[in-house]
Amino acid sequence: MNKINRVLIVGGTHGNELTGVYLIEKFERNPALIHRSNFATLTLLANAQAITAGVRYRDKDLNRCFDRQERTDKLYTDKLYEVQRAQEIVDRFGTQGKTPVDVILDLHSTTANMGLTLILDRVDAFNLQLIAYLSATQPQLKAFSFAGSERKRDALRSIAPHGICLEVGAIAHGTLQPRLFRDTEALVHRILDYLEQYNSSTQLPQSTTVTIYAYDSIVHYPRSSDGKIQAMIHPQLQFRDYEALHPGEPMFLDFDGETIVYTGDTVVYPIFINEAAYYEKDIAMYLTHRLEYSLYDSEHDGKRIKEQLS
Amino acid sequence: MNKINRVLIVGGTHGNELTGVYLIEKFERNPALIHRSNFATLTLLANAQAITAGVRYRDKDLNRCFDRQERTDKLYTDKLYEVQRAQEIVDRFGTQGKTPVDVILDLHSTTANMGLTLILDRVDAFNLQLIAYLSATQPQLKAFSFAGSERKRDALRSIAPHGICLEVGAIAHGTLQPRLFRDTEALVHRILDYLEQYNSSTQLPQSTTVTIYAYDSIVHYPRSSDGKIQAMIHPQLQFRDYEALHPGEPMFLDFDGETIVYTGDTVVYPIFINEAAYYEKDIAMYLTHRLEYSLYDSEHDGKRIKEQLS
Repeated sequence: MNKINRVLIVGGTHGNELTGVYLIEKFERNPALIHRSNFATLTLLANAQAITAGVRYRDKDLNRCFDRQERTDKLYTDKLYEVQRAQEIVDRFGTQGKTPVDVILDLHSTTANMGLTLILDRVDAFNLQLIAYLSATQPQLKAFSFAGSERKRDALRSIAPHGICLEVGAIAHGTLQPRLFRDTEALVHRILDYLEQYNSSTQLPQSTTVTIYAYDSIVHYPRSSDGKIQAMIHPQLQFRDYEALHPGEPMFLDFDGETIVYTGDTVVYPIFINEAAYYEKDIAMYLTHRLEYSLYDSEHDGKRIKEQLS
Repeated sequence: MNKINRVLIVGGTHGNELTGVYLIEKFERNPALIHRSNFATLTLLANAQAITAGVRYRDKDLNRCFDRQERTDKLYTDKLYEVQRAQEIVDRFGTQGKTPVDVILDLHSTTANMGLTLILDRVDAFNLQLIAYLSATQPQLKAFSFAGSERKRDALRSIAPHGICLEVGAIAHGTLQPRLFRDTEALVHRILDYLEQYNSSTQLPQSTTVTIYAYDSIVHYPRSSDGKIQAMIHPQLQFRDYEALHPGEPMFLDFDGETIVYTGDTVVYPIFINEAAYYEKDIAMYLTHRLEYSLYDSEHDGKRIKEQLS
């Protein structure tokens, strides 16, 4: 087990996701809150100009600027603000940076009803054990894995060995809501507590099974030949993130009131339903499937994971 | 009574308020929907560049660019996109424009829980009768008057003799929701129907009393000496637009969990609570008071209005 030396908590990767912005500012006013005994906790307001302007990004979505190949090949020569900012962040916190961090916790919010969700780029022992710990006392916490998607490793969190995005909603971009603020803050503290105990090899209470919602596919908006969106998220699906969607159930409603149903042949669990920032990315929602993992001790390295497709 | 010759329905004055944008696009695909027998109905997507970018505005809030004095004195020499766009709109639809309009209906949406609200700049016989007609079958409809506020006549709607803003919510900016879309569309149709009957002097069913929520004051966010927001809308107030707020009741919650109460000495009715776009304007909410108007026939001009302070 590699010791965690530095943890970076990030807010404002998207400038209009205020929960993370104001939480980082709170932590920066009160560093004792995030101080732990056996690692250093750093903070970052990632997209300073977007935060000031109250927008998601200025030139390009910062959370799509960290693909290594794109940075070295093409975009680094660009003058886009976020591309330059991404390089600054890599130079500071990346594995070859001045103060490389072992864990990144990137705080986001969404207009979708995602509750409290941990977003992972892969399912590994570290992530599973973290979620097993958190789920033991917070069973409503969700975990979503991008593993298997075609998305590049272009997110800010990808520059650390362990990168986790914390996604909370439903909340309108550009606004704050105390309950989500408090819940996000509490979850950050629990994750820091976990990492502290992980470092000291403390045996922790944890769930014996973990549910991961695994990326399946993107659902695009129905569009006309000239590219215009032709339908809205169906009212029966709105805010129903993580609930089972069966073949034939309503998915969209067009502007004349006609229903468009889900035509797949398996039960899926839609997430990021009606996220405002995904209109321009043409993502109406992600479809996921549920994976159940059983965790049990082994004689070798403390834990071993058995994967079972539910 | 002056006959209504032209009605202008506007969407996308703020580019990320999609309900209006998509409704105007629907009307432009199907002009028969908004055709009426005794006036012409025109449509406008007001802030084209902001709509494309999916943001409220590019350089300056378009709905603050129509003050006559500012346009002639100062800002018209400016290169700001919205200032130029405002002048184009005035040249087309203003009282001295190419196709002057008598009524403007400007479609907006808000993250505040405003339901369906008509925003007026003054309480006059025309507006009262319109609301009395709409309220007769739709008692949950709200009307808010800016009369008495210090806001200039800088809104797009102000360039017509009769300017009304239709504000719907709660909805996150940058998203669509079918129920609000349908309700907004239905209300537009009812307003057009009313205007058609108004032109033909048809006697219409109407409520005998009308409630107007009248502008009282702005509540700013609590801020530190360096200008940072220090508190969020209290969870007990969130989404409670138009409900009575009594002296001593919670208004904000600071980032450490301390409640800040309403310190006024009268009952007020807060609206636009936690509107995302108002963070930069430093408006946490407006306070209003309720006015009840009685409408009765007179021998002179068909209707006369008696104002009563509730």
